[in-house]
Amino acid sequence: MNFLEEKIVRDATIKEGNILKVDNFLNHQIDMNFLDEIGKEFKRRFANKPINKIVTIESSGIAIAVATAKYFSNVPVVFAKKQKSVNINGEVYKAEVESFTHKTINTVIVSKQFINEQDNVLIIDDFLANGYAMKGLIEIIQQANATISGIGIAIEKGFQPGGKLIRKYGYQVESLAILEEMDCENNQILFAKQS
Amino acid sequence: MNFLEEKIVRDATIKEGNILKVDNFLNHQIDMNFLDEIGKEFKRRFANKPINKIVTIESSGIAIAVATAKYFSNVPVVFAKKQKSVNINGEVYKAEVESFTHKTINTVIVSKQFINEQDNVLIIDDFLANGYAMKGLIEIIQQANATISGIGIAIEKGFQPGGKLIRKYGYQVESLAILEEMDCENNQILFAKQS
Repeated sequence: MNFLEEKIVRDATIKEGNILKVDNFLNHQIDMNFLDEIGKEFKRRFANKPINKIVTIESSGIAIAVATAKYFSNVPVVFAKKQKSVNINGEVYKAEVESFTHKTINTVIVSKQFINEQDNVLIIDDFLANGYAMKGLIEIIQQANATISGIGIAIEKGFQPGGKLIRKYGYQVESLAILEEMDCENNQILFAKQS
Repeated sequence: MNFLEEKIVRDATIKEGNILKVDNFLNHQIDMNFLDEIGKEFKRRFANKPINKIVTIESSGIAIAVATAKYFSNVPVVFAKKQKSVNINGEVYKAEVESFTHKTINTVIVSKQFINEQDNVLIIDDFLANGYAMKGLIEIIQQANATISGIGIAIEKGFQPGGKLIRKYGYQVESLAILEEMDCENNQILFAKQS
């Protein structure tokens, strides 16, 4: 097991409905040492790619994206926003994204100022499940005619269709932990083997 | 001028209605070197305080809180969430917060697991304007009977009542830049002098 799989086994809990709660170290309380490990590992996995921008989606992607950008040199983070803010000026790229967690549909936007066709983008997010959010981010980056250099996911739910969907596009997709099975009654998780 | 004031003068823009747009380096695109400076400066200003937890509110507080926590040792970040997530277990602390930007009222919550009476909390946020969000965070930490060791704000709008309101509580409040006047027509900003 890698460090994230170990962390999940030790500190995450499984809830009915295939929900993995990582509230205590990733998306409500953040364990900073662990977060740093994630950033370092994404850098390692995408070390050979030209990357000049990291794009994520608010809220829980932000911490991971910032921790990852720390390992790159002068690479800003851009986070897509989930609603039309009155403070967003001018033109935006946008995509419709269904939230698996909150059962809502959000319009996700990125100001056109911040992604353009010269950019080589690493997309970062905490979870990949049905792939709706990731599909939205990909759409936005395609609208900008930017290049997607890679996609880094902390936790992929391998039993939901997002991973297959996203890999079909042909991008380098790196999920640090892929859940193959979650057994709520016995609090057991089976991870997919990674090469 | 300090680094944040210089950054504001160079890269921020003023919009009608006393809105300061810092989208290009702080709350949509994040300049990582600049973010690191903010974290370092908060550490410097609260170096003598016992701090074992950093609390902020999603979304734009998260990056600053993470950058600040990096300068403390083993201090986790907890970010308050703006709606009742279906994934939040059990009991929560909560406060009602009006959003100046989005003109909405949100229930802000923190799971009771993550703040308790032993905690010495540094509260971090990007903006202090009317102080609604900050008041909500303070309420939540008071509900937990935790100690507020300090409050760190990137940008305070000194012409709005939040700063006065929060300083009345007696906490150490550190705003890295305090806007005293914003002149939209001439794109000029006057900062409050800091000791």
